[in-house]
Amino acid sequence: MANPIDFYFDFSSPYGYFAATKIEDLAARHGRAVTWRPILLGAVFKLTGQQPLPTIPLKGSYAAHDLVRSARLMKVPFKMPTKFPIAGTAPSRAFYWLGDKDAGLAKKVALALYHAYFAEDRDISNPEVTGNVAAKLGFDKAELTQALNEPAVKERLRTEVEAAIERGVFGSPYMVVDGEPFWGSDRLDQMEKWLATGGW
Amino acid sequence: MANPIDFYFDFSSPYGYFAATKIEDLAARHGRAVTWRPILLGAVFKLTGQQPLPTIPLKGSYAAHDLVRSARLMKVPFKMPTKFPIAGTAPSRAFYWLGDKDAGLAKKVALALYHAYFAEDRDISNPEVTGNVAAKLGFDKAELTQALNEPAVKERLRTEVEAAIERGVFGSPYMVVDGEPFWGSDRLDQMEKWLATGGW
Repeated sequence: MANPIDFYFDFSSPYGYFAATKIEDLAARHGRAVTWRPILLGAVFKLTGQQPLPTIPLKGSYAAHDLVRSARLMKVPFKMPTKFPIAGTAPSRAFYWLGDKDAGLAKKVALALYHAYFAEDRDISNPEVTGNVAAKLGFDKAELTQALNEPAVKERLRTEVEAAIERGVFGSPYMVVDGEPFWGSDRLDQMEKWLATGGW
Repeated sequence: MANPIDFYFDFSSPYGYFAATKIEDLAARHGRAVTWRPILLGAVFKLTGQQPLPTIPLKGSYAAHDLVRSARLMKVPFKMPTKFPIAGTAPSRAFYWLGDKDAGLAKKVALALYHAYFAEDRDISNPEVTGNVAAKLGFDKAELTQALNEPAVKERLRTEVEAAIERGVFGSPYMVVDGEPFWGSDRLDQMEKWLATGGW
């Protein structure tokens, strides 16, 4: 069995959202599974000194334009959220907690969370909103929102973020195929070529 | 006659080099000319607070890997230069000065300068090296290297950089098609679709 693709993303990252809508089909075309790994870019940016895109002069307004244009091209529903960026803490903790119960369903929740934020302008940094999204897919909302504050759940996310940084992850989306890193939704093409050819 | 494509680039930008090797053929496929506009990212970064790629933790080492991998895929000769980044002042001034004499030949010099830097590891920030590259394409080296210090030539580059910033250019390569901006060599695909379809 071929190695799964590691898929790192931040719930506040629009390019991460774009990649999330494509990566399972892409991987399946090459007989690969995908391990989803939400991270918190805030922790990474502290280390790298980067700033969230919208706050960077010139680049920020280009990005706003590029996102809408890319979404139209990819036919992904997208509207820049009113509140941006947000902390991905609640949805990320929820994802890992749900993933231990049902990995496949947790991915569906992750996609639904991304959709809630980037297509419906719902603030998924709010644990209540994250709980409502998960509940729609059959999880118990009260149990989930309570879990978000458990020390073990908090620690799990911290550990995942640290491991990602240790591995060199500095942005979202960031994919690793058999040790080969690909950063950005515009590297999905190269990643697919890599999967098809074994590298060049 | 359709508008020419504005092509902004920094002589120290490897992704700008990649784009420079592709853009004329790409434009020609859609009946477009290209106006080449070297700029100095240093001046832009002062405004945007960005840092040169190699100096950014994690991102810098990924970029080093991505550049070599992308160059192999595109079959563009590439070796990370010993001295990087460099100031693009001399080659940029040379380009505008030569361009007023022969716009087509100036582009050939620009490509030769990029090749000298990114394939032959020659330091084109040195006016002597820039002069040698231009001389190989038939320009008078002594006349050129003298021109590099003329106030009018210096002013010309300053004006071009200011106009670029005014227009929102924050990186290299940066292309504008009929007012539509595209940043990065990984947006050449979208730019080509835009040229083919008139936009989406």
